[in-house]
Amino acid sequence: MLGQIPFGVADYFWEEALQRQALIADLLATFRAWGYGDVMPPAFEYAASLGAQASAGLQAEMYRFLDRDGSTLALRPEFTTPVARLVGTRLHDWPMPQRFCYAGSVFRYVDPQAGRQREFWQAGVEMFGAASPDADAEILALTAQTLSVAGLRDYRIVLGQIRYFGGLLNALNLTPPQADSLRWAIERKSEPALADFLRETPLRTGQRQAVEALPGLSGADIQQVIDRAERHCLNTEMHRALVNLQAVVDALAGYGVLESVLLDLTEIRSLGYYTGISFEALAPETGFSIGSGGRYDDLVAHFGPAQPAVGVALGVERLLLARQRQTGAISAPQPIRAQALVITDRNPAAIAQVQAWRAAGHRLQVEVNGRGLTGVLEYAGQTGVAQVLVWAVDRFVAYRPDADGSFVPGQGEIAFDG
Amino acid sequence: MLGQIPFGVADYFWEEALQRQALIADLLATFRAWGYGDVMPPAFEYAASLGAQASAGLQAEMYRFLDRDGSTLALRPEFTTPVARLVGTRLHDWPMPQRFCYAGSVFRYVDPQAGRQREFWQAGVEMFGAASPDADAEILALTAQTLSVAGLRDYRIVLGQIRYFGGLLNALNLTPPQADSLRWAIERKSEPALADFLRETPLRTGQRQAVEALPGLSGADIQQVIDRAERHCLNTEMHRALVNLQAVVDALAGYGVLESVLLDLTEIRSLGYYTGISFEALAPETGFSIGSGGRYDDLVAHFGPAQPAVGVALGVERLLLARQRQTGAISAPQPIRAQALVITDRNPAAIAQVQAWRAAGHRLQVEVNGRGLTGVLEYAGQTGVAQVLVWAVDRFVAYRPDADGSFVPGQGEIAFDG
Repeated sequence: MLGQIPFGVADYFWEEALQRQALIADLLATFRAWGYGDVMPPAFEYAASLGAQASAGLQAEMYRFLDRDGSTLALRPEFTTPVARLVGTRLHDWPMPQRFCYAGSVFRYVDPQAGRQREFWQAGVEMFGAASPDADAEILALTAQTLSVAGLRDYRIVLGQIRYFGGLLNALNLTPPQADSLRWAIERKSEPALADFLRETPLRTGQRQAVEALPGLSGADIQQVIDRAERHCLNTEMHRALVNLQAVVDALAGYGVLESVLLDLTEIRSLGYYTGISFEALAPETGFSIGSGGRYDDLVAHFGPAQPAVGVALGVERLLLARQRQTGAISAPQPIRAQALVITDRNPAAIAQVQAWRAAGHRLQVEVNGRGLTGVLEYAGQTGVAQVLVWAVDRFVAYRPDADGSFVPGQGEIAFDG
Repeated sequence: MLGQIPFGVADYFWEEALQRQALIADLLATFRAWGYGDVMPPAFEYAASLGAQASAGLQAEMYRFLDRDGSTLALRPEFTTPVARLVGTRLHDWPMPQRFCYAGSVFRYVDPQAGRQREFWQAGVEMFGAASPDADAEILALTAQTLSVAGLRDYRIVLGQIRYFGGLLNALNLTPPQADSLRWAIERKSEPALADFLRETPLRTGQRQAVEALPGLSGADIQQVIDRAERHCLNTEMHRALVNLQAVVDALAGYGVLESVLLDLTEIRSLGYYTGISFEALAPETGFSIGSGGRYDDLVAHFGPAQPAVGVALGVERLLLARQRQTGAISAPQPIRAQALVITDRNPAAIAQVQAWRAAGHRLQVEVNGRGLTGVLEYAGQTGVAQVLVWAVDRFVAYRPDADGSFVPGQGEIAFDG
């Protein structure tokens, strides 16, 4: 029927749309305060660019369509690759580091049955040209700050370092199928699958112990996890991953956000894309991921001179949902209430006064249906507007509900409720 | 080559992106102050919905693609139809009038050689459930206010009433090809084409005079245009169009924006879509349209119970371009400058101070590449940052350029330039 919309997309309106826009504005303001500059890449571009380093999963989720010249376009499934393309192709000659922030919708062909939307909003930052633990720490601290600005009372950042597992894979000299089984077992945190791998794969004692220890290498006591992981290093790559992680944690200490950070060396889902730290932001009471980030030093080289890079992307809808669940602030959908309905009688002085109130930030709706005082008071009652202003010769008179809910005229100065 | 982007789309970044975001925020704030509530329809939906009342031209410009269930989707080419769909299908039981505002990108397959973008931003408002001249006047006054808020020093609103020409067409009893020639001549303001039409079409004297008078029915003296048009009314439809126009102009008088309004009864490009007033916003020095609007009382009925409606859509890029041309404020692209670069030495007290400054709205970049004072001062010089703050034991010392441009340490309180 004309009027339905496809599964997986949504109309946002009334209070819900206003909250989204307010949150997006708050997130961008936070990013800018940390010295990040706005970037707005196109909503679609060549599919080959967007897929430069995308996983098979993300490739499969891209909305592709043909341009009229026959080239294959796609809607952006995330912002990191377009921003890396911009830096690689056009901005590589400018001084580094460069910091960018964005907020906008992204598009993925996902199964809406699982509660995921096919169009959803992401807000995030990317920093290019800084390979240091301090850069990683800044992104982690900014992520924590952003979750706090978004109104989450409780959040966790689960931090991993993909090189620890990458080094382990190298140290084990596995066949590709063996490596796949190990990755599969660790990714899904499956004990039976890991037991299968250990039973079916010939390993030396130290190798076996390193694999057996892996599932336990996570927790809130960061130092303890690093120390335990250190005992199972089989090569310099694993060791360097831990040295890097220690340096990031040291750099993060001054921001006072470590109590929200957990370490998890089994977090390997983005192996092949991330090249150093990787992390996920979680809201404990909701059980879902709010966003993720990490270091991706190999992406910009697809488009221009290589640049180290680190960033984070947060899901705007997930931030809103997590905040609603944590604060219990879910209410029935309601239109936005104006602070007053106004009957101007088209008087220029009345209109000028309305314009001055609007310029001062008040939200006023002027009656345009000629309903007169009785009709407008009735409409105010229906829509929950707190006052009606009526022009009387040379000034406005404010009608507000009395104890019985009947609108009665007041005296003196006119004031506006929030 | 990997890294190019398709013709007709663009990356916005640095100052340009910040200006766009700031303008969008200002436009939405203005709309909200007039009692309009945010609405965010999806970026794509069923092509049939989006095309419900689209002109053949707009239909041809829609980016269509197949959903995986075989249905035809399209990227939104404008916002009015999605918002009308929302009101028609889900909000028709709520009290009227309902006011909505939006800002977002729209997508049209246009020829980029003509300087048009295929993705561009629109910001606008829609009002449903009010058929009155006061509603039309509010939209016109809000359009003027918006152009002013956007920083245009000079603008015009060219106002038409599609029913005057519609009534004339009915009064002439033309064959479809004759009606097409007349429409074509008037739309393109072509005198030769109009002369051809008059020569080839048998008309009575009054009819002929009404057609001959039409090209002259425009100008800044609104009353005079209405009076002249009145003399050529051939039926009540033409007369009613003028009565309506007069009432809209009367309702608009109190807003003090009539000096920016021109009347033009030859403005008929959206015949078939608009059902009453229609208008275009122009920046005289630039020669292009910045936006357009009008009354569209037939659209919502495609989706639900009929509702009168009126609205306006402004092009964000065109607003920015018109403002730049009018103010001469075109500058070389530059990265956003932080107000200070900061060396914290990871000291928690230093970081806390930086966070406090950020919370107060200042834009500070922390050094993450460990370059030390000399390196950071050099980077500040390259990027034009006005000061470098260095943590010294228990406080920040500010380095600012002296008369020779060398950074020297200052004394006392730290201040931030805009």
